Amino acid sequence: MNLAMIEAAAARMAGHVRRTPLLNAPLLDRAVGRRVFVKAECLQITGSFKARGGWSAVSALPVDACKRGVIAFSSGNHAQGVAYAAAAHGAPCVILMPSDAPAVKIANTRAYGAEVVLYDRATEDRDAIGARLAEARGLTLIRPYDDPEVIAGQGTVGLELADQAADAGITQAPVFVCCGGGGLSSGIALALQALAPGLKVRTAEPVGFDDMARSLASGRRERNAAASGSICDAILTPSPGELTFPILSTLAGPSAVVTDDQALHAMALAFTHLRVVLEPGGAVALAAALFGDGLPDTVIAVATGGNVERSTFATALERFA
Amino acid sequence: MNLAMIEAAAARMAGHVRRTPLLNAPLLDRAVGRRVFVKAECLQITGSFKARGGWSAVSALPVDACKRGVIAFSSGNHAQGVAYAAAAHGAPCVILMPSDAPAVKIANTRAYGAEVVLYDRATEDRDAIGARLAEARGLTLIRPYDDPEVIAGQGTVGLELADQAADAGITQAPVFVCCGGGGLSSGIALALQALAPGLKVRTAEPVGFDDMARSLASGRRERNAAASGSICDAILTPSPGELTFPILSTLAGPSAVVTDDQALHAMALAFTHLRVVLEPGGAVALAAALFGDGLPDTVIAVATGGNVERSTFATALERFA
Repeated sequence: MNLAMIEAAAARMAGHVRRTPLLNAPLLDRAVGRRVFVKAECLQITGSFKARGGWSAVSALPVDACKRGVIAFSSGNHAQGVAYAAAAHGAPCVILMPSDAPAVKIANTRAYGAEVVLYDRATEDRDAIGARLAEARGLTLIRPYDDPEVIAGQGTVGLELADQAADAGITQAPVFVCCGGGGLSSGIALALQALAPGLKVRTAEPVGFDDMARSLASGRRERNAAASGSICDAILTPSPGELTFPILSTLAGPSAVVTDDQALHAMALAFTHLRVVLEPGGAVALAAALFGDGLPDTVIAVATGGNVERSTFATALERFA
Repeated sequence: MNLAMIEAAAARMAGHVRRTPLLNAPLLDRAVGRRVFVKAECLQITGSFKARGGWSAVSALPVDACKRGVIAFSSGNHAQGVAYAAAAHGAPCVILMPSDAPAVKIANTRAYGAEVVLYDRATEDRDAIGARLAEARGLTLIRPYDDPEVIAGQGTVGLELADQAADAGITQAPVFVCCGGGGLSSGIALALQALAPGLKVRTAEPVGFDDMARSLASGRRERNAAASGSICDAILTPSPGELTFPILSTLAGPSAVVTDDQALHAMALAFTHLRVVLEPGGAVALAAALFGDGLPDTVIAVATGGNVERSTFATALERFA
């Protein structure tokens, strides 16, 4: 994993994946007492940064593998990212989703052109079904974070951020990143180390799902006690990735952990001041940047996604706007 | 009014006013049956394109006039645009607002650093108060649309759009623009005529406040019967501007008129598919692009602002998301 891989991923995705803006708002800065810059990946083509990793992985496939197709396990943003990239490459795409996934997510994944295969979470083994399908059809599995090309794709956020921060005159700042398995955080950390070493990645996670924070503290990959129970569904992973953890061990600054309420509050402030729509898991880094203690004058947060149920969004507005 | 003035305005605002993205979404295109591109001015620094005109006008002042300061009449987006620009130039800024304006708008305008002077809509004459203040303090009045430098500033949207459309391979498309007095529409029309003549501005207005549509049809400046009564408050002006109307008479294509419900529906679709927050008046052009009849395969809409009450936004989500 290095800068050259990230730059190669950026070259492959040009014109297909969006360069997202770095937003800020004078009234938000005034309310918070520091300058807060937000890399708005919720404005990415599929509503989250996952389009980058998906594009990077699919576009790096050998042509015969691309023709056979790809498979991914996801009911959320990774599914949409992979499906979008696969469709654009003419690659068949199978997304394996639990049969109790929300109907809108199943419909959206199909609308991107993917074949959705449902399994029963209680009685069927997802990995076995996936392996059987992959074997039978020669599909390539696209993992959500433990894949070098996925990490390289997510790292293109860091390339843009290095440019955009320089344009804004920012040379020193923490960069909070919403963290599940660590693919985005580690990719950005690699890019920034090379291009803007004064910008330091800090992972942000929800309370109770702070496996990365605990792992970075202990020096080994820790697991979360629970698999669900936070509204930040997009970033609930069992433990840091095998590839991502060593990168973040070396490059990341102190981790942040925020409450679900702080994530909702960040969503409401993003609505009012930045006019963007965030999902809870995509607002965790912004919450860390807004509500953290002992932060410097200027902070950056990566707002990773905006695929949110309207009832959840309405709750955020009712309680905090 | 010409391209050189618009380019000069763009040069003055570099680094202070945001280049907003041109957004699109595969699932929105699929739902609508055509490609819809959205120039997201709701992501502009003050939440609307008005920061452009404000910056252009303030930055064009002679230095002594800038020191004396500026005055504007507005309770909305124009006030915030002018206040933002004035503060950044160290220019005193008076905003004259009706005393029954929403408290949050008064507070926001003050937070941008402006002095808010309130008047009683029923018993006081706004223009007389403004003239007296301007005279006493040597303030320059910044009009919301009938000012060449304001039109030039808004026209910078057209410069960006010409670039962004070319990058997306779009050479022919209608460009729907939310229209009040016509400052933005006419500025964009001037820029596009020079740089991308296949992109044709079409004004979009709410039902009952279609003064521009009727004026373009009749060939003379018509007035609206009412001064209020649409949720699209940002774009309710009595009649086309003196400077803007002749430009649009020459350059604009057929006008669009949409209902308040269509504007709310467009807000809900922008939430779901583009993850941006629009105010009703800022969603009128998108509504025209989404719900208009007989449109070509590819359309562009300028989403002009995102400063919306949360209750209005919640209504849009409840009814249409």
